[in-house]
Amino acid sequence: MFSNLSAGALGLSLDHTQAIDLAAKHGFGGVDPDLAYLRGLGSKAAIAEHAASVQERGLSWGISNVPVALTAPAEEFRASLDGLPETLGLLSAAGVTRVGTWVRPMHDDLSYRRNWVLHVSRLHLVADLLADAGLRLGLEYIGPKTFWSTERFAFIHSIGEALELIADVGKPNIGLILDSYHWYTAGESAIDLVGLTDADIVSVDINDARDDRQRDEQQDLDRRLPGSTGVIDLAGFMDAVRAAGYSGPVKVEPFMKSLAELPVDEVLADVSSRLDRAINGPAA
Amino acid sequence: MFSNLSAGALGLSLDHTQAIDLAAKHGFGGVDPDLAYLRGLGSKAAIAEHAASVQERGLSWGISNVPVALTAPAEEFRASLDGLPETLGLLSAAGVTRVGTWVRPMHDDLSYRRNWVLHVSRLHLVADLLADAGLRLGLEYIGPKTFWSTERFAFIHSIGEALELIADVGKPNIGLILDSYHWYTAGESAIDLVGLTDADIVSVDINDARDDRQRDEQQDLDRRLPGSTGVIDLAGFMDAVRAAGYSGPVKVEPFMKSLAELPVDEVLADVSSRLDRAINGPAA
Amino acid sequence: MFSNLSAGALGLSLDHTQAIDLAAKHGFGGVDPDLAYLRGLGSKAAIAEHAASVQERGLSWGISNVPVALTAPAEEFRASLDGLPETLGLLSAAGVTRVGTWVRPMHDDLSYRRNWVLHVSRLHLVADLLADAGLRLGLEYIGPKTFWSTERFAFIHSIGEALELIADVGKPNIGLILDSYHWYTAGESAIDLVGLTDADIVSVDINDARDDRQRDEQQDLDRRLPGSTGVIDLAGFMDAVRAAGYSGPVKVEPFMKSLAELPVDEVLADVSSRLDRAINGPAA
Amino acid sequence: MFSNLSAGALGLSLDHTQAIDLAAKHGFGGVDPDLAYLRGLGSKAAIAEHAASVQERGLSWGISNVPVALTAPAEEFRASLDGLPETLGLLSAAGVTRVGTWVRPMHDDLSYRRNWVLHVSRLHLVADLLADAGLRLGLEYIGPKTFWSTERFAFIHSIGEALELIADVGKPNIGLILDSYHWYTAGESAIDLVGLTDADIVSVDINDARDDRQRDEQQDLDRRLPGSTGVIDLAGFMDAVRAAGYSGPVKVEPFMKSLAELPVDEVLADVSSRLDRAINGPAA
Repeated sequence: MFSNLSAGALGLSLDHTQAIDLAAKHGFGGVDPDLAYLRGLGSKAAIAEHAASVQERGLSWGISNVPVALTAPAEEFRASLDGLPETLGLLSAAGVTRVGTWVRPMHDDLSYRRNWVLHVSRLHLVADLLADAGLRLGLEYIGPKTFWSTERFAFIHSIGEALELIADVGKPNIGLILDSYHWYTAGESAIDLVGLTDADIVSVDINDARDDRQRDEQQDLDRRLPGSTGVIDLAGFMDAVRAAGYSGPVKVEPFMKSLAELPVDEVLADVSSRLDRAINGPAA
Repeated sequence: MFSNLSAGALGLSLDHTQAIDLAAKHGFGGVDPDLAYLRGLGSKAAIAEHAASVQERGLSWGISNVPVALTAPAEEFRASLDGLPETLGLLSAAGVTRVGTWVRPMHDDLSYRRNWVLHVSRLHLVADLLADAGLRLGLEYIGPKTFWSTERFAFIHSIGEALELIADVGKPNIGLILDSYHWYTAGESAIDLVGLTDADIVSVDINDARDDRQRDEQQDLDRRLPGSTGVIDLAGFMDAVRAAGYSGPVKVEPFMKSLAELPVDEVLADVSSRLDRAINGPAA
Repeated sequence: MFSNLSAGALGLSLDHTQAIDLAAKHGFGGVDPDLAYLRGLGSKAAIAEHAASVQERGLSWGISNVPVALTAPAEEFRASLDGLPETLGLLSAAGVTRVGTWVRPMHDDLSYRRNWVLHVSRLHLVADLLADAGLRLGLEYIGPKTFWSTERFAFIHSIGEALELIADVGKPNIGLILDSYHWYTAGESAIDLVGLTDADIVSVDINDARDDRQRDEQQDLDRRLPGSTGVIDLAGFMDAVRAAGYSGPVKVEPFMKSLAELPVDEVLADVSSRLDRAINGPAA
Repeated sequence: MFSNLSAGALGLSLDHTQAIDLAAKHGFGGVDPDLAYLRGLGSKAAIAEHAASVQERGLSWGISNVPVALTAPAEEFRASLDGLPETLGLLSAAGVTRVGTWVRPMHDDLSYRRNWVLHVSRLHLVADLLADAGLRLGLEYIGPKTFWSTERFAFIHSIGEALELIADVGKPNIGLILDSYHWYTAGESAIDLVGLTDADIVSVDINDARDDRQRDEQQDLDRRLPGSTGVIDLAGFMDAVRAAGYSGPVKVEPFMKSLAELPVDEVLADVSSRLDRAINGPAA
């Protein structure tokens, strides 16, 4: 696995070339692709050239948002498929292999099972379309009870449920986006990660939680940098990810607005260092 | 439909013969059967004689608890099946046709779908065993969010989910226990009851809610007598039940400990009168 | 319900204006719409004018093929959605309300449940897109064992399975296309049609079967005109359709090449008369 | 894995002590347990002594039939559970760890999905009851089309479907009984066995098929000894079983009545030798 710079996940406004420069400068192993930037390059040849230059700087691609309106009303979803081949062509030309999205863990109208059918239906189609372009799709479950309990029906908010959904869709290019924050808030432990392989994981996020709140009071959008409070058993989480043989990107997504007010180099040096420590694990 | 005296649901300690006398005295149309009493009668002939005497007093049978450990661990469930034929023989000899249970709307270990498989599995078997004895099984969904959101996984807590479960089990002798309190706390309205028929409903409870709490703050075990606060649209609920052509028992289950401290005749006169008004609907 | 002239189902090559003339001449109550003809009219105003003229001749619209590649590989299905809004606009402008397709009752690669997920996934999306245009979707199950047993995995080939699929998709604008030939070859009887309502049926076909073959030897594409052999209990079938309150088109689809060699007026007079007798039922 | 003498599967009438003697004499690695024999021993101590003596002769336990009426009508199934704890106690005292059954691949009344619910329901309960006694449950899918296509509805008849069922039941002590004959008649190849582990397989049967019939004409109860015709790719099958790390019994179940007419020592010497060759694989 490799540390990944995702400016968006850090709440930083960096344009794509800046992000690449900063990723290289601070020793990240990867950077998120930027679909708008790829589109602006105008040709598959230019995209391939760009991708080669990123690779020369020692950077792998992280992950991009899935370019469809996955759970939108039917016509909006259909319309979002109109341009999909062109978009997938851009990602494919750049050599991007991972796209992802999160699963909304509740719904005000759809019962668990009706929401399940909606998700299976859309994912079944989208997974095949992505597979044709060499892309894997990562699904992130969202753990905080302060989020999943806020509407009439709860939905997927644990790793077990996410794996059940992936199995029911039955497409080999769908996997998990694992986030230590959701793993913690879902009440999970290392045992819930046993048996995972690299094929099951599309991306990994590491974050910590506030130490002045109980687990069921944690808020989805108020987290801490990995290792900063020690509330989350980051070592146990990363041991399991290593045991799975995971080979992909690891990033930080703390939803801390304060980061945007600090010098960007300071933030990235800190984040890169935290990611490295987590990835490398305890010294032998 | 008919008003039903369920001493247990009112929190009153009445022995079975007392309950029958009081039901007749206060003009109820039915009374809950008492399995222990039936067993104590010693023979099917004695049970049939008892049932005939209840009927002669103008009383129909209400509903009994389902006599199996429906969601217990496997061996406990299996053991509860050992004596089932004998128990069903008693209920059958008395002419009882309705048994019921409620569905726990959350679980700390089983995800929604694993809990679903547990319920389908047990109900699939039990429904057939009950059908052989001429019994229908009513399932009551539980609406309050203060209850279903308290463990790691929510489960069935709405009429739509209960109907999905019944359809998936696929046995014609399973139906709903409808309670106006759960209908209200689940955020449902009259439209959610459209299309129901007598075959879909095994029993009906009517209760009101406290008027000093919001819907999502209502507690499962703190209700009010039907019509007392007006929080719940009892008229709309009963119109829908009438439109379904419902022919079974209607009872009150307020979980108000204060009732046990009042003179029993006063309580039953009040309850009987409230049930009659609800059943008869608005005067023409 | 009304008799419907479907030239295609009779194996006749009639252009659309011919079909309308002949339908009116021979007393049919309806005629299938012709999507290519509608498209050729060039404007919604011209389509509306055409539809009004058909209606003035006493004809209702029958049913059109669903204009998507429902079970094609993902990219082919997606591509077929590109032009869907335009096509639905044409059908909508003409006042067409029924489209349909048949369900292939076997598959060489997909197990029953994987095929189920494919069908649910595609139908879930397409039903919503059709609903936006005021269209209902009819699904025809195919009964002959000589067909469903020919590949590695059987799939839906009975009314019960078709209803299970429709329930699982959960969209109110999907219903059945009932064909007496499939009802017979599936080993069904009048009891299998009990409980159906007009909302469950999108179109009806009536055909008879060869009298020199056993039920399980009947071939899907070798049938007889309704009432000609008496192998199929057409009266029982139509009684059930009437009991459902069915209000839509009834047509004949015999797959008899010999019909194309007879004078068209002779064929249509015979078919119209057979449909009328079936629709009107036994004289009082 | 080890060669297993199952007298029943060979169509031989051997009492249990004979079977043990012959298994030892002919170099089998295991022998099927005999529930009636265990029961006849009268005490758990006697059973444990017997099991120890079998083990001393170098024999492991093969597999026993699951001691419940798994798909019988509800009351018959319930009644079969009455004595289950006592039966499981006998098997447990003997150290038996594997029981099994086959899945009937068709049904005249239950559609695929209704039959699925029946199987999931019963297996969900039985698996837990067996697990309490340390038993794993093997399910054997049946491949021949001449069998699964003979009633109104097909059911599980391939490895993929069997694995789907096991996943849906969701109990870790359920696995496959793999038979090369069903693998061949189901149209499967080595790729269908990729990814299996020892935990997925409870027992293995090897048989060959007649060489004067096409695959879809093979009859379930008319097979050949493994390796005798070469119709089935036994080497490919066993390579895959080895790759799975399978550690359990391997037996022969040819349904050849002629075996009972040959000298038993001749039959067992031949069978043992065929099993050894299959288990050991090609010489290095």
